[in-house]
Amino acid sequence: MTIHAVLIDGEWRASTGQQVFQATNPKTTEGIPGDYPVSPWSEVETAIHAATRAAEAVRGWNGSRFADFLDDYANRIEQRAEELITLANQETGLPVSPRLKEVELPRTTGQLRQAAKAARDGSWVEATIDSPSQIRSMFGPIGPVVVFGPNNFPFAFNGIAGGDFAAAVAAGNPVIAKAHSSHPATSRLFAELAHQAAQATGMPAGFVQLIYRTSHADGVKLVSHHFIGAAGYTGARSTGLVLKEAADRVGKPIYLELSSINPVYFLPGAMAERASALAEQFATSCLMAVGQFCTNPGLVVTMAGAHTEDFIRQVTERFQAAPIGTLLSEGVQKNLHAGIQTLVRQGATLLTGGSVGGGTGFSCQNTLLRVTGHQFVQAPEALQTEAFGNSSLIVVAADEAEMLAVTRCLEGNLTGSIYSATDSADDSLYHKIALILRQKVGRLLNDKMPTGVAVVPSMNHGGPFPATGHPGFTAVGIPSSIRRFAMLQCYDGVRQQRLPSALQDKNPTGSLWRRIDGTWTQGDVPAAKS
Amino acid sequence: MTIHAVLIDGEWRASTGQQVFQATNPKTTEGIPGDYPVSPWSEVETAIHAATRAAEAVRGWNGSRFADFLDDYANRIEQRAEELITLANQETGLPVSPRLKEVELPRTTGQLRQAAKAARDGSWVEATIDSPSQIRSMFGPIGPVVVFGPNNFPFAFNGIAGGDFAAAVAAGNPVIAKAHSSHPATSRLFAELAHQAAQATGMPAGFVQLIYRTSHADGVKLVSHHFIGAAGYTGARSTGLVLKEAADRVGKPIYLELSSINPVYFLPGAMAERASALAEQFATSCLMAVGQFCTNPGLVVTMAGAHTEDFIRQVTERFQAAPIGTLLSEGVQKNLHAGIQTLVRQGATLLTGGSVGGGTGFSCQNTLLRVTGHQFVQAPEALQTEAFGNSSLIVVAADEAEMLAVTRCLEGNLTGSIYSATDSADDSLYHKIALILRQKVGRLLNDKMPTGVAVVPSMNHGGPFPATGHPGFTAVGIPSSIRRFAMLQCYDGVRQQRLPSALQDKNPTGSLWRRIDGTWTQGDVPAAKS
Repeated sequence: MTIHAVLIDGEWRASTGQQVFQATNPKTTEGIPGDYPVSPWSEVETAIHAATRAAEAVRGWNGSRFADFLDDYANRIEQRAEELITLANQETGLPVSPRLKEVELPRTTGQLRQAAKAARDGSWVEATIDSPSQIRSMFGPIGPVVVFGPNNFPFAFNGIAGGDFAAAVAAGNPVIAKAHSSHPATSRLFAELAHQAAQATGMPAGFVQLIYRTSHADGVKLVSHHFIGAAGYTGARSTGLVLKEAADRVGKPIYLELSSINPVYFLPGAMAERASALAEQFATSCLMAVGQFCTNPGLVVTMAGAHTEDFIRQVTERFQAAPIGTLLSEGVQKNLHAGIQTLVRQGATLLTGGSVGGGTGFSCQNTLLRVTGHQFVQAPEALQTEAFGNSSLIVVAADEAEMLAVTRCLEGNLTGSIYSATDSADDSLYHKIALILRQKVGRLLNDKMPTGVAVVPSMNHGGPFPATGHPGFTAVGIPSSIRRFAMLQCYDGVRQQRLPSALQDKNPTGSLWRRIDGTWTQGDVPAAKS
Repeated sequence: MTIHAVLIDGEWRASTGQQVFQATNPKTTEGIPGDYPVSPWSEVETAIHAATRAAEAVRGWNGSRFADFLDDYANRIEQRAEELITLANQETGLPVSPRLKEVELPRTTGQLRQAAKAARDGSWVEATIDSPSQIRSMFGPIGPVVVFGPNNFPFAFNGIAGGDFAAAVAAGNPVIAKAHSSHPATSRLFAELAHQAAQATGMPAGFVQLIYRTSHADGVKLVSHHFIGAAGYTGARSTGLVLKEAADRVGKPIYLELSSINPVYFLPGAMAERASALAEQFATSCLMAVGQFCTNPGLVVTMAGAHTEDFIRQVTERFQAAPIGTLLSEGVQKNLHAGIQTLVRQGATLLTGGSVGGGTGFSCQNTLLRVTGHQFVQAPEALQTEAFGNSSLIVVAADEAEMLAVTRCLEGNLTGSIYSATDSADDSLYHKIALILRQKVGRLLNDKMPTGVAVVPSMNHGGPFPATGHPGFTAVGIPSSIRRFAMLQCYDGVRQQRLPSALQDKNPTGSLWRRIDGTWTQGDVPAAKS
């Protein structure tokens, strides 16, 4: 049996690791041939040193160099799209069409190209020039970035191809990617293409590297290593918090995307108006991709009443009638079931589902639970347990006061949605809830489900802890997401020819947006008054 | 003896604390009459709840409301400037003129007014609008902010009047200030004026609050409290790291400004050209304010040679000839002496000074030490021990390779300065050093000492750990510093009239800078194409 090589310092090398693992096809629950190595620390360290050399080699490079790499890589991904889709389908069970082919792959190449455009344009560095004092600053690369991708987006969040990768590279940083163990072959093919693109566009060895797995202890050493600039991690809360603690201790930024249950509010006026339509929208959103989205609506907040009961009945029927999808892995199935059991133990009533199985391979019944608002505020922490997958908990508040009390108990989330009457019937309550909810979520929605995440500059795929580690940053949305992998670099009295081109008097492209003496402009620095 | 009241929830209250402390006049080393309470947890908690209510009360307010408060406060500070200066001089030993009167007080009111201007203008929120998708985002207030001020700037970094305070308020957040124990009377008078300004401009109770001291355990509970948005801490590394750990554990941003030794490089060509001038500049900068600046040049890196020996001899003479100033406190005196002793134990040669005393009150001799580059790279951590005060360590590297090796060993610092020949003689070495140093400092200077920190938008008073906790933020420089106390808030499909004014179609002021569909503009959102 072949043991797959790791991509280190510009070449595919046989790993020196003694342990291996295999991927599993979640539909058949059988192993997929091919052994992937667990890299020992010595190998990880080699990658760190190579990334450090690469970071020095590219320092001061014009953004267009990184853009060329990203564009070339996106092209290569399109050329090998069929293979990528076949591998990802086999390793994750996600449908070929439309999910992988028409949605996630185009999104992934789109992100790489948006990042390329931002790197070429350069305005993301927020060049700030104060001409009287001759002080100038901009965001510059933070140093080698480690990216841990999650299980649920084999393309768009892949450590070697996804949003964090694109953002880190656009900022001018080498990336050490750790593949998610559930889709190593997909990640390997991406790495091959990234490596080819790096060679074709003259990137130094060690600019893109891939390892498949490390011990937990080595993961901790990696994110807190002296030579690492920052890390991006999307995945389970428990592992993320261990990495965060290690990185925090040595002051290394680590951007986490952890659990989020994405509360959705249905206010009484909206329920009275359109309970059936809401039930359909909600059930569709919650069961889409078997609920395996970071923005899946795992918590619904409603007010007691006949319309709400009608809504609950209809959602229950829809959950029962809908097919049961295949989950990403045995681990997802186990955690989902454990999450549901925790909610039941805390007093949630099972409306439908709750058991493992029912679909092809790893699966769990479409599950709906309910609690009262009173129950929720009695055990808010346990009742916010994430049951990642095709499951949701409906909170039925007795009155406005209880709905507000529920809102105050919420932890940080990526999103919060409020459905209200199309007229002003819910406005007063809307404002009371939004006032509280606004501070607890990264993205506030009106009359929309949270499961669509548009890759636009204004997107915030972030939010207060524990959804992420810092409420000021987003993982999706270019150029904002690039900023995470940058440090603020000020130049005080530095001679003109030694300044990065973005900070020199002359606008280097004629289109770079800069803040000169307090005003955004695409012009040059005005000549000094004599 | 009067026990001074604390400012909690909009009123001056007798503290319920049982312990008290006094300030000390560092010139006389005697206590200053007046007892200040150590607040128990119940009192701190009352402040947290009051701040939380205040945060909700002001949510959605226009930036001009916060600006009015900041401007009014600045005016009141000017009206009571004489008293503030007298108190600060008594409590810190810092000279009335020019330091307190002509430099620090105007800087403080200037910062408050710059923050007011930024709050009124509103462009700091970086409103970003994507009209096709109807997604919009901006930075909004993060929640109640706790500010711990340092000992060395009784005005400009005071927890209730300094840069962090101004930035937190400009972002729309209430502040709970913890006075530094070395200047409680100065802080108390500031709080009186802040309280008056808050009342005069209609701010809610609990918007500005002051406590003097808490136990360490309660400080930890405070920065990690569920209702707190973020914290700012400027001070000793040991305390800062304890607070950081607590805040990090619960994902609360904490912005630290810790120790920094601010390396200054004198390249051979500069030494050959102007050793005497450099010796004068360096000695003046290093002894200014008795070396008690965060940006004090505590480490000098030179290349072995006759000019360097000449430089060292001249600096030594200047250190010996200069008066010995009064240190801020007994603690500063003790830590400075301990720092010098650590350096000596690690093999540094004492060129002059090294003993406690020699000046009025708390003091220590002007101290200069030297080590070889070889010694430095053998014990880089210990030889980067901060000796905060009128002391500096000169590293003499044998050659370029050793100078680069020294540079690679440097920890994160606020600043790094490089003096080079006025012609291109040092250019090759400059580039090699700058390539490494750039990533280790927040502000890179040419031919300048780091001790001047201009309050301009492009300033970066920040840098990699351990100088701060995150290299992407600055504590000085408006509007950038405001950003620390804000969270990213996205609105997805939110109805027009429910949006903050900065995100509505119409530019609310006509002068607000927004990024609409990728372009910075002061215009309105273009009407949708039908």
